[in-house]
Amino acid sequence: MNMSERISGFQASPIRRLVPYANEAKQRGIKIYHLNIGQPDIKTPPQVIEAIRNFDKEIIAYGQSEGELALRKGLLEYYQSFGIHISLGDVMITTGGSEAIQFALMTLCDPDDEVIIPEPFYTNVASFARSAMVRLVPVTSTMDKGFALPPIEDFEKRINAKTRAILLCSPNNPTGYIFSPEEFEAILALAERHDIFLIVDEVYREFCYDHHSFTSVLRYPQYSDRVIVIDSFSKRYSMCGSRIGALISRNHGVLEGAMKLAQARLCPPDVEQVAAIAALKTPRSYLDEVRNEYQKRRDFIVQALRSIDNVRCTVPNGAFYLVAKLPVDNAEKFATFLLRDFHLNGETVMVAPAEGFYVTKDLGKDEVRIAYVLNVEDLARAIACLKAALDVYPGTAR
Amino acid sequence: MNMSERISGFQASPIRRLVPYANEAKQRGIKIYHLNIGQPDIKTPPQVIEAIRNFDKEIIAYGQSEGELALRKGLLEYYQSFGIHISLGDVMITTGGSEAIQFALMTLCDPDDEVIIPEPFYTNVASFARSAMVRLVPVTSTMDKGFALPPIEDFEKRINAKTRAILLCSPNNPTGYIFSPEEFEAILALAERHDIFLIVDEVYREFCYDHHSFTSVLRYPQYSDRVIVIDSFSKRYSMCGSRIGALISRNHGVLEGAMKLAQARLCPPDVEQVAAIAALKTPRSYLDEVRNEYQKRRDFIVQALRSIDNVRCTVPNGAFYLVAKLPVDNAEKFATFLLRDFHLNGETVMVAPAEGFYVTKDLGKDEVRIAYVLNVEDLARAIACLKAALDVYPGTAR
Repeated sequence: MNMSERISGFQASPIRRLVPYANEAKQRGIKIYHLNIGQPDIKTPPQVIEAIRNFDKEIIAYGQSEGELALRKGLLEYYQSFGIHISLGDVMITTGGSEAIQFALMTLCDPDDEVIIPEPFYTNVASFARSAMVRLVPVTSTMDKGFALPPIEDFEKRINAKTRAILLCSPNNPTGYIFSPEEFEAILALAERHDIFLIVDEVYREFCYDHHSFTSVLRYPQYSDRVIVIDSFSKRYSMCGSRIGALISRNHGVLEGAMKLAQARLCPPDVEQVAAIAALKTPRSYLDEVRNEYQKRRDFIVQALRSIDNVRCTVPNGAFYLVAKLPVDNAEKFATFLLRDFHLNGETVMVAPAEGFYVTKDLGKDEVRIAYVLNVEDLARAIACLKAALDVYPGTAR
Repeated sequence: MNMSERISGFQASPIRRLVPYANEAKQRGIKIYHLNIGQPDIKTPPQVIEAIRNFDKEIIAYGQSEGELALRKGLLEYYQSFGIHISLGDVMITTGGSEAIQFALMTLCDPDDEVIIPEPFYTNVASFARSAMVRLVPVTSTMDKGFALPPIEDFEKRINAKTRAILLCSPNNPTGYIFSPEEFEAILALAERHDIFLIVDEVYREFCYDHHSFTSVLRYPQYSDRVIVIDSFSKRYSMCGSRIGALISRNHGVLEGAMKLAQARLCPPDVEQVAAIAALKTPRSYLDEVRNEYQKRRDFIVQALRSIDNVRCTVPNGAFYLVAKLPVDNAEKFATFLLRDFHLNGETVMVAPAEGFYVTKDLGKDEVRIAYVLNVEDLARAIACLKAALDVYPGTAR
């Protein structure tokens, strides 16, 4: 019995093809450094855990579909802390940033509608688009240009009657690029000109390094009507497993639409919202420490990668990912080799073949995404594995 | 700027139209008995709360997309306890039964595909179908026949090339009907004949009254390939807010398809899964007590309703809902009247107009769904309000 075309047409992500090899390696006793996924080793703020341990309801009942009032109010204050004023009616709590992306796509798009997105991009967006039967139309950003916003003309020529939105992620997963105010102004003007929406995934906003600062797309009130922000507690407070995110828009048509989807699934998880309310009380010092830690990791990994012959990467200004170009015939084959055929003193490293972050065929074939979510010592061992593997991998260009 | 047709075409549920009137009534200091939603007043088992209070992880990290192993294993044992043998590979944990329904629909259906469903049915299924752009094709079950499965011919004549599945709920929300083994055999044979799937929502399986027992569709191994079960922890352990459910099928093509959707949203909420693992250790005595309590409530409410002139209802054998026919011109107008224009000593009752549980236009216009989720004393006061309101409501047939 066949499944739907919707499902059979899902892009198989190369990372997922690697999982069986990773499991086999573990069974052989190999230690794997996971640079393939954005699961930080940073501790969840202690008051989040404490709030869970103080849970004192007798009934875990349905909550509000738009999320708990205290959590939405707390989120307003958090936004206020970096100068963004939003109102209660602009905020809906979602089950992870994932659900916020799904709600945005479904609220704006019918099957066969199009959303333009710079590639490489966060792989799961392709799955959410496929679920909604929405077409993702890629505009390629390149390492040579530091993964900056591609020229506006590249977006403009892809806009047609089916185009409903442009989707950006800043700071970017997987490139670490932070879009500038000028880039936002240009893309917002384009969206206005063609009467389409701009969706911006800002979940990495607290992770900006050096003198780089983050610009929220909510800073442009004149475009409020077409702006949608995706937010999440996952990375900011290292509570990925809680699945608490938010959908934010000053366009209440968008939130009313999303509310229909939210009501159908009843409410976001209750205990996790209690945890999220506590997370919003996290002192700024926690976020600063975490940012400093990631900056240290980034500095280390960029230098370590660049010290390897023929490996290239840009310096990511934000988030905790980078895309590296490797001197190999095929990044997925190399990533498979790392898990299946290689170890350095019983250790190896898992990386994400970048192909899964592109829609355009054949792009990213010699690139990997690296999530620098481990401490410097572990990163050093992981990169040592990578370097040693490049030395012996048959497909390395020499 | 328009939203998608997908969203604008959502059926507006009459219950949601009542919410502003309920809020206004509360502001006027009126106490409302909520018989409109399935939020039980039963306490969550204490060891569930205790497990939350003992939460001892330092990082709330991403878990497995298919759910935590301990939870899936625990669920197998729970199924074993009523004689159903399923394997680990047959079970996926979902974010509520809601997500399990969505996964099932998306895995089986492309836009414009059809799913046949007896009406009245759980309203939110209409929203999930609309999200996936799947058409729900209703077969009407009637109070005169006790809301039993409509004749097989009624299903058969609606099957065409677009039909992918039949969706049942047993014990039924909103009718309380429990499908018999004979009904399952007939519908399974039909599904086999036309090579379609049977999805059964079994979330109320622990709520069966008198001598009535529940038949799981998993009892028919010869049809394994076309059977999908929706399960949920929400009602069974009164933990609706945790949003933990499950998708179960021995057809691994279905689970592999759903896994693509599950991986995109990463994992179900972590702390709530810890709670759910503890829920599975709930002693049988808790479930028995809860069932006895509901049986008492059911006995009471059926008698109370039938004692009102011209009010009709069937005796629900399971779940904790019933559909009542009221002697009114329009049930939504009457439900609005209850909230807006009526109170009995400062109290009133909120009921769900049944229109939202039907697809066929004009059905359910004189029916309401009543969730008997309050204790007998509160139910008595709620029904006293209903009776008094019928006496003064201008649209009551006299």
